[in-house]
Amino acid sequence: MGCMVRTLYWTGKSLCLLDQTLLPTQTVYVDLTDEKQVWDAIKRLVVRGAPAIGAAAAYGAYLGVQYEAGDVLRRADEVCKYLATSRPTAVNLFWALDRIRKTAHAAPMDQIKQAILSECHQIAEEDAACNRAIGEHGLKLIEALPRDADGAIGLLTHCNAGALATVEYGTALAPMYLAHERGIKLKVYADETRPLLQGSRITAYELQQAGIDVTVLCDNMAATVMSQKKVSAVIVGTDRVAANGDVANKIGTYGVAILARHFHIPFYVAAPTSSIDPKLANGSLIPIEKRKGEEITHGFGKQTAPDGVGVFNPAFDVTPAELVTAIITDRGVMRPPYDFHRSMSS
Amino acid sequence: MGCMVRTLYWTGKSLCLLDQTLLPTQTVYVDLTDEKQVWDAIKRLVVRGAPAIGAAAAYGAYLGVQYEAGDVLRRADEVCKYLATSRPTAVNLFWALDRIRKTAHAAPMDQIKQAILSECHQIAEEDAACNRAIGEHGLKLIEALPRDADGAIGLLTHCNAGALATVEYGTALAPMYLAHERGIKLKVYADETRPLLQGSRITAYELQQAGIDVTVLCDNMAATVMSQKKVSAVIVGTDRVAANGDVANKIGTYGVAILARHFHIPFYVAAPTSSIDPKLANGSLIPIEKRKGEEITHGFGKQTAPDGVGVFNPAFDVTPAELVTAIITDRGVMRPPYDFHRSMSS
Repeated sequence: MGCMVRTLYWTGKSLCLLDQTLLPTQTVYVDLTDEKQVWDAIKRLVVRGAPAIGAAAAYGAYLGVQYEAGDVLRRADEVCKYLATSRPTAVNLFWALDRIRKTAHAAPMDQIKQAILSECHQIAEEDAACNRAIGEHGLKLIEALPRDADGAIGLLTHCNAGALATVEYGTALAPMYLAHERGIKLKVYADETRPLLQGSRITAYELQQAGIDVTVLCDNMAATVMSQKKVSAVIVGTDRVAANGDVANKIGTYGVAILARHFHIPFYVAAPTSSIDPKLANGSLIPIEKRKGEEITHGFGKQTAPDGVGVFNPAFDVTPAELVTAIITDRGVMRPPYDFHRSMSS
Repeated sequence: MGCMVRTLYWTGKSLCLLDQTLLPTQTVYVDLTDEKQVWDAIKRLVVRGAPAIGAAAAYGAYLGVQYEAGDVLRRADEVCKYLATSRPTAVNLFWALDRIRKTAHAAPMDQIKQAILSECHQIAEEDAACNRAIGEHGLKLIEALPRDADGAIGLLTHCNAGALATVEYGTALAPMYLAHERGIKLKVYADETRPLLQGSRITAYELQQAGIDVTVLCDNMAATVMSQKKVSAVIVGTDRVAANGDVANKIGTYGVAILARHFHIPFYVAAPTSSIDPKLANGSLIPIEKRKGEEITHGFGKQTAPDGVGVFNPAFDVTPAELVTAIITDRGVMRPPYDFHRSMSS
């Protein structure tokens, strides 16, 4: 049967992290006992995925004050400032450390340490609860999908929006974990997701560990599996949703959405409400990071394109809202026309 | 400016082959002086691509009889039989060796060697002429395409149907080489083509050598470049065309065709008339080779998916005729509804 991989957990006196740099070939947990080790783990991508980084950093802050005998508040500020330097652009990292700092300042002097630890647990639990809620709403969509001759439901996902990017469950994979927990048979197709192969390295790993039937395919094979009627729905994650429902996600998502439309397959995007940005009118306003060509041409320690060739390597693409069947959030399934202002304040 | 890479040429006494196993990082020609070296070169993929293999094998047969002082005819039969064992399923290999054998048997006893060498040149020249004809017909389509602000025409191709798969020019790349020769500015996007990366390793190499502006991208980025209006047409090769116009080609072609349709971009398939099989009613009858999962999970000497995971790895896909704008052949541009029987006998 297997069970869902834990990204991180608190042992009572240390933070235990799955070392994601060793995936998919080795499952090794590392035990971190001070803030320097946590800083290093975030820096080296031992832990990755915005929500998981946020939770790890929070526990790192607690580890930094845990044995402080003097001014705990000053120490908390120092440690939070230090941990914030581990990765430059991780919004959840700053957000989580800010929560820890505010908690420390609000607590009575003799209870700062306990207050920080309690806030760490709160951050982790909120993420897990949010993802579980996404899973519950997504599960209803999955249950309504047609099954194959084996009684299984075929799903396709791109990149990794799974348990290992979060504290638990993930976003796009949350409905799959819940379906599996309830005995629904799934056949999941995981695009390998070039250039960094998050699909084959991480999504395939965590689904396999959970005992879910998973098949890796190259990104360019998605049309073929869809044409063979092996895919009843696509579920992907997102980095940011614009007010009109345009969705930024890992490069390749846009193409999968077009294929899904062509084959009349529903295309679902799973997102915590916090990823929806109602102030952003549409997806063309989302800045797209362009990454180094070497990720493509020297991706596996071996040069696979000629020296000096031009390379196109955007990290994300924007799928137009018209191709998105629905957005699965922790507050329910949202369908176009979207009114995120209203739905988020409700 | 650069110039088109030569796959092979006859030096007057030996066969000179570009060692394609060293691409894209090294350009090394090897000089082959006997049939054993040619057998080994075909076996080790020093030369690849059906037409190029056929021509190389023919020259190999000549090298095998070149210094024969006794029964040249018997020697020719022996050498052809031997060379046919170099690769198991290469139709052009058997076809070319059959031509050599027939030529030997038809020639006057004292002119067998010259007749074989002349037939080798004929095989090579026919391939080059066929591809040049495809190029001329395709060029007219390219000339009609819209240009970007730089006066360049953007084209996208998948896999390698280029000079290095043939004796010269290639099929899908032939119109590009001719356009470049005539001073038409191109910007070519080459899908890297997972899992074996023929696009980044070979297509990018040969276009770059010719001085054509080429940009490598991951297969999953094609939707993005198309959405940015950087692609005025797609041109790909094919392994086999069915009577109804369905087209088998490297895995990923089907997806590109769907994207092209979505963005209203013409999707052209370049093919020698010999690749059209009017006896095959439609593409569902084309057997699709399934290859080892390791090509995806251990593609570059490094494991990139968990042990024991399911893998989907078809080598080809079949693009339905409805997605193909036209087929560019050596006898002209064919558009649906196809009547290959008539067009091929005309």
